[in-house]
Amino acid sequence: MNKLYGYWRSSAAYRVRIALNYKGLDVEHIPVHLVKNGGEQHGDAYLAINPSHLVPTFTDREGLKLAQSVAILEYLQDTYPTPTLLPFDPKERAIVRSMVAAICSDIHPLNNLRVLKYMSAQGFSDEQKSQWYQHWVSVGFETVEAMLQQYSGQYCFGDQLSFADVCLIPQVYNAKRFNIDLSPYPLIEAIYGRCCELSAFAMAAPEQQADAGA
Amino acid sequence: MNKLYGYWRSSAAYRVRIALNYKGLDVEHIPVHLVKNGGEQHGDAYLAINPSHLVPTFTDREGLKLAQSVAILEYLQDTYPTPTLLPFDPKERAIVRSMVAAICSDIHPLNNLRVLKYMSAQGFSDEQKSQWYQHWVSVGFETVEAMLQQYSGQYCFGDQLSFADVCLIPQVYNAKRFNIDLSPYPLIEAIYGRCCELSAFAMAAPEQQADAGA
Repeated sequence: MNKLYGYWRSSAAYRVRIALNYKGLDVEHIPVHLVKNGGEQHGDAYLAINPSHLVPTFTDREGLKLAQSVAILEYLQDTYPTPTLLPFDPKERAIVRSMVAAICSDIHPLNNLRVLKYMSAQGFSDEQKSQWYQHWVSVGFETVEAMLQQYSGQYCFGDQLSFADVCLIPQVYNAKRFNIDLSPYPLIEAIYGRCCELSAFAMAAPEQQADAGA
Repeated sequence: MNKLYGYWRSSAAYRVRIALNYKGLDVEHIPVHLVKNGGEQHGDAYLAINPSHLVPTFTDREGLKLAQSVAILEYLQDTYPTPTLLPFDPKERAIVRSMVAAICSDIHPLNNLRVLKYMSAQGFSDEQKSQWYQHWVSVGFETVEAMLQQYSGQYCFGDQLSFADVCLIPQVYNAKRFNIDLSPYPLIEAIYGRCCELSAFAMAAPEQQADAGA
């Protein structure tokens, strides 16, 4: 049985849940509580599976232990190519991957739980953390919005769902949690609305997970 | 003619230079000075090519304008598959991609020039910036070293060069610039030494670029 070690509010786990749903793949969800008891991701049991202290991890019965959400997405695409989440044309798939990186390398790693926790431990105020969060989301969403002006249709890349949507929606969810005003990013907001109506995305939402609220 | 917009000291551009060299591809290098005049990456001329205010960008004669180093690496692999920089087996290539993300999402975006500049503008001291840099490199290199214990040979993934090496070497170069002690990471250090002797890596080094020292 495939297993996904994740956490309901983790944006990175949320990405993988969307892709699994879209491709119709069964998986056992193993919650790793990122806050309780100092964070289960730091415990020996989890570190034996993933030494990064981060979720998600995807495992299968053949012994694969795979960290990093984007690597998991690519693996799912390589292994279960249909329904596809990458265009077939190399230039088109390259553009999708550049959108993925604009979100998963240039926004999320600056603003995730471990960074905000580290800032608190270093004595940064809530105000400073909030400014930091808002700054990197704004810079990142400006870039993504500009890419969408060039490439989007119903979804991030034309009218075909792709990894770009799979990664954008959790980032928008996260930004809304932090009360970011989305009105400067009308394309992001519209695509978020459209994707949230699709069952693969709706079923992957944090509040729909068994560990939600835990 | 393919063009690479980059900067000699940019780790992300350095990754792409290594891959281009390894695959024997000709490219015209267009320097974008990240510091002079407030940063040429913020100028209208560059933003028309890449709205992210970041290097590198890869362009070709057919009008492709591709941002994000990892997307460029994947594009080069898709378009020029040999010599390969990804294993053929889906599980093996997934592991390589997870190493890439451990470096390119979890280390570099926290420590690159724009982040350090923003911290200065917010009034953080050099001491605070140095602590920040060291913290995220240490956390990240611990993860990478643990992955290498499981998967490395002569290079990051067995004895076959891959994207993982292409991404690791610029990150180590960057860490050495910031005087990070590499002795806790013997596998990283050994692979760095081996790769630097290869011509594709040596020719891509910052000091070998036409704009070096500019």
